[in-house]
Amino acid sequence: MIHAYRTPSVGEIELKDSFLAPRVELGYTSTIPSSVKRCRETGRINAFTLAWKEGMPDKPHPFWDSDVAKVVEGMAYMLKLHPEDKKLRKELDEITDLIISAQQKDGYLNTYYTTVDPEKRWTNIFDMHELYCAGHLMEAAVAHFEATGERKFLDCMMRYADYIDSCFGTEPEKKHAYPGHEEIELALCKLARASGNSRYLKLARYFIDERGKKPNYFSEKEEVHHSAAELAARQMHLPVREQKDAVGHAVRAVYLYSGMADIAEAFQDESLLQAAVRLFDSIAEHRMYITGGIGSTKAGEAFTGDYHLPNDTNYSESCASIGLALFARRLLNITGDSRFADVMEQVLYNGALSGLSLSGDRFFYQNPMEYINPSARNGGNFVPVRIPWFDCSCCPTNYCRFLPQLGTFTWAESEDGVVMHIPAAGSVRLGKYSFEVKSAYPYDGNATIHVLCSGNFSLKIRIPAWSGNNYEISVNGKQIPRQDFVMEKGYVILHRPWKSGDEVKLSLSMKFTFMRANSHISCNAGKTALMRGPLVYAFEEQDNGADLPDMGLFLDQAIISEPAENLPEGTVSAHIQGFVCKSANESSLYAPWDCSVEKRTVIGIPYALWGNRNPGKMAVWLPVR
Amino acid sequence: MIHAYRTPSVGEIELKDSFLAPRVELGYTSTIPSSVKRCRETGRINAFTLAWKEGMPDKPHPFWDSDVAKVVEGMAYMLKLHPEDKKLRKELDEITDLIISAQQKDGYLNTYYTTVDPEKRWTNIFDMHELYCAGHLMEAAVAHFEATGERKFLDCMMRYADYIDSCFGTEPEKKHAYPGHEEIELALCKLARASGNSRYLKLARYFIDERGKKPNYFSEKEEVHHSAAELAARQMHLPVREQKDAVGHAVRAVYLYSGMADIAEAFQDESLLQAAVRLFDSIAEHRMYITGGIGSTKAGEAFTGDYHLPNDTNYSESCASIGLALFARRLLNITGDSRFADVMEQVLYNGALSGLSLSGDRFFYQNPMEYINPSARNGGNFVPVRIPWFDCSCCPTNYCRFLPQLGTFTWAESEDGVVMHIPAAGSVRLGKYSFEVKSAYPYDGNATIHVLCSGNFSLKIRIPAWSGNNYEISVNGKQIPRQDFVMEKGYVILHRPWKSGDEVKLSLSMKFTFMRANSHISCNAGKTALMRGPLVYAFEEQDNGADLPDMGLFLDQAIISEPAENLPEGTVSAHIQGFVCKSANESSLYAPWDCSVEKRTVIGIPYALWGNRNPGKMAVWLPVR
Repeated sequence: MIHAYRTPSVGEIELKDSFLAPRVELGYTSTIPSSVKRCRETGRINAFTLAWKEGMPDKPHPFWDSDVAKVVEGMAYMLKLHPEDKKLRKELDEITDLIISAQQKDGYLNTYYTTVDPEKRWTNIFDMHELYCAGHLMEAAVAHFEATGERKFLDCMMRYADYIDSCFGTEPEKKHAYPGHEEIELALCKLARASGNSRYLKLARYFIDERGKKPNYFSEKEEVHHSAAELAARQMHLPVREQKDAVGHAVRAVYLYSGMADIAEAFQDESLLQAAVRLFDSIAEHRMYITGGIGSTKAGEAFTGDYHLPNDTNYSESCASIGLALFARRLLNITGDSRFADVMEQVLYNGALSGLSLSGDRFFYQNPMEYINPSARNGGNFVPVRIPWFDCSCCPTNYCRFLPQLGTFTWAESEDGVVMHIPAAGSVRLGKYSFEVKSAYPYDGNATIHVLCSGNFSLKIRIPAWSGNNYEISVNGKQIPRQDFVMEKGYVILHRPWKSGDEVKLSLSMKFTFMRANSHISCNAGKTALMRGPLVYAFEEQDNGADLPDMGLFLDQAIISEPAENLPEGTVSAHIQGFVCKSANESSLYAPWDCSVEKRTVIGIPYALWGNRNPGKMAVWLPVR
Repeated sequence: MIHAYRTPSVGEIELKDSFLAPRVELGYTSTIPSSVKRCRETGRINAFTLAWKEGMPDKPHPFWDSDVAKVVEGMAYMLKLHPEDKKLRKELDEITDLIISAQQKDGYLNTYYTTVDPEKRWTNIFDMHELYCAGHLMEAAVAHFEATGERKFLDCMMRYADYIDSCFGTEPEKKHAYPGHEEIELALCKLARASGNSRYLKLARYFIDERGKKPNYFSEKEEVHHSAAELAARQMHLPVREQKDAVGHAVRAVYLYSGMADIAEAFQDESLLQAAVRLFDSIAEHRMYITGGIGSTKAGEAFTGDYHLPNDTNYSESCASIGLALFARRLLNITGDSRFADVMEQVLYNGALSGLSLSGDRFFYQNPMEYINPSARNGGNFVPVRIPWFDCSCCPTNYCRFLPQLGTFTWAESEDGVVMHIPAAGSVRLGKYSFEVKSAYPYDGNATIHVLCSGNFSLKIRIPAWSGNNYEISVNGKQIPRQDFVMEKGYVILHRPWKSGDEVKLSLSMKFTFMRANSHISCNAGKTALMRGPLVYAFEEQDNGADLPDMGLFLDQAIISEPAENLPEGTVSAHIQGFVCKSANESSLYAPWDCSVEKRTVIGIPYALWGNRNPGKMAVWLPVR
């Protein structure tokens, strides 16, 4: 009943656009190799030899396994895009063999507990990331299986899942606990699909249904009592079906919600789907930055309250944006509703990629909406320069697995054909269907879809919300009159007998648009953000000078597109008639208004590309006149 | 060398203005009686019977003593204003006798430790407020001595101070600790002045000099190790002379800095004075709201970073503003520099009184700069309605002692005469000098000072920074030409042979002024606040409707003064030509800018009086066009 679209496998879509495709390539040439290197240098990979003993360097850390797993997942997916790369295959084999070798006889696989604290397995599920690491290893195993066709890693992780299943569940002798950091729920669903074993779905459903139940395992049954605030920080405050607001640690939240969507789909569980949609709406309607960033505060890397979206102290962890894109896609797949695709695209083109440098090997953990007052952010410990690695390196390793998947966000397969979510240039081979998309998306709203297959099928084309429903579509040169469109949930449905050589042209109205925030977001009162198509623009000191904090925009002036300076070819910058307030009294905390308003051309560049030139001030929201 | 002014004693100035005087009266008729009642009902006063035993209700709390002390201090000061009130005197005697009866043989006096945990005296100086409570009891004793001339409470607290002196100090056998919540430093200085015993000054100096020294008592010597962040939260991170930024818990901070100023004055310690001034500048130039509120975050009720002054989540505890006024006055007294008076006045007329309802018996703990998005503040647990009491009731009890002292902020005695800081209407009897001030201050900038004494002395008149140095002064009807003024540190000095009947007229330019925040305070970019004289204005839903969040102001329009509706007689409201942005899409989180700008008269009232009518939205900063 509930299932609309199938996500493409990695490799079914080969991107050729100027925005996403270079990021995929960067993942191949830079992000993954540099992350593998870091994982080796820091002892993360070596940890799987289980050779560590007290007093030795590189003591395994509770979540190191997840870092290696995410890099391996990325390597496997990248191998699907580059099947000819024998070196990559060899290194992937070597690492996966090492991981497999670390499995204990009972199926358990965790380098930290096996070497550092062998007596303490499952004793601190709240904090110690065991089930989280297991989940990432499962996702890696599925990717490895998809990429190589070999079952050894998959079988290994099935044994681990079987062991976990023997430890957790409703039975009295099992632990009635659930993960302190969600992830395994969605991973078990992937494992079930890859292996065909539905027991893993049931285990995932157990984890989801048990969460937040009274009496609460973590506040009442564990030795260490956890407070209501601590429970909410990990989405344990209520049974998931009763949760209405997205709360707590943002990454944990969207991983949980993704698992909920998976289980809702697997069991056709309407009430669980409704809960997931409600939580999505809480994010998309009340708790999300315009870039798709989530997590308003560094304290707990967490959601705060509705409309509390400060620009100067936002956290918007890269991993949280990646997670939100994955969550939005799940709801899109289930419902076929483009409102989920709108958010998915908003995240994809803005907050999910802003964490990655154009060199591919430097990262933001947090993604500022603004860098005007250095002391507001991390008490001055943040500088707007991406760095190569973190002790807690979830974000770099998440990019390793996210980048090769970028193409899979653009199309999907439906029951009776295909769906184009995003008209990025590329080659599409979806099962029996194939197409070539030519476009300069996201910098231009025109795309040509060359049909390379024949048959009577449905081609659905998404009309993004940002287009304001201004679009045209022609088939083989013949423009389709508006009244003839079949439109469903934000998609135009072209259902007809197609033949190879057919040509569909989509023209989306793409123009610079001043955006206004809901008036409850008081820090944005009187300010505007600029969008063009799916891209949110940022204003950098590099283009505008150090008096950026005194600048603003005129809403009634035309905006000119210009090639952006010192950014990848094709990048469109915005030249806007704006102003700068010049004051004689710049140093006072408060002073009588004495600004003289001077006209100034203000220059914006896509937010996803900010912080790649000279480090300096940046703002997404500027005052208007 | 460093000492300019003497603060008047309570009673030397009788306020008769329409802004401060009614608050003093409220303190007498409402704040103090209601707080005494609460202290009785909650067991705070009864705790001094030392009758509490395990299992009984109303278990004493570690800082209950301070609440009672502050109420007693307020009662004593109020008795100075109402010496005829026998009922007040009787109740004051009763409570002070009870307090005195709780003193132990060795001089110790603390209801919590004596009844609840007698073995644990001085074992947790970091958290348990023993020295803080002692400090407030000392302040109360000094007030009691001043009000009654009786020494019994003063002697009692001298014995306590002697005992504390025997426990803390440089000697090897003493504890090398200092308060986890500052207060006793400034209290010991008061006790020394009242008693003439300089040992208390030395003890205060010890507490101040020991603070933050390496090895740090609280991070290295105590059993429980305290982190660097915990030390900074209590101003223990560095020796005070090395501290440059105002950090940590805002109330603790300004109490410490006040003690530093006292010790600097007492010992003519220039480097300590410089440190105190540096910390004042950190506040006044980088970390203070325009209302004089301090403490940008509820987390730790603390300062954050320079220019990080969010409106929607500011804390600005009432006690912190009161403390800042007291700190600013100390530096004013020492230096004679009006820049300290400017901040003192800014706090006094705005953030220090906004916490008190016009009924006198309801309080804000935090003083919002804005109430637009309910969920931003305390996660939605704040409503803009003052409440009658708190479990941690430091703010109500601070008002008890602050209100009778309001008059003492307006004038001071100098070496060769008197100083008028604030031209509030009232009768001034400062030692041998006496005056009657007639004015409608703070709503009007004209004041007449009737000289009621004769002699050759200096009358200094402060020219507030907000006047932009636009003022006129006439003596006996003769305007003094500008070039004839002797001006020093922001004060005009009129030194001449005065005779009773002389009349000085001061005319300060008082007009509505749009204020601009430093551009590093990014939440205020493109926004203005309104001031008139010392008053900051607030915009309330009551006057402006529920679409307040969509409103803004035109900077180039005249502002009309009107009597404020449903506020005390004489209150001046501002009627400003502004606008409201009407959007068809009010519910979206972000939407294309579609506002139609409609003209609207926007009405402001003094910030100190907000939240006294129907509860609703409020903002201090509004966007400009």
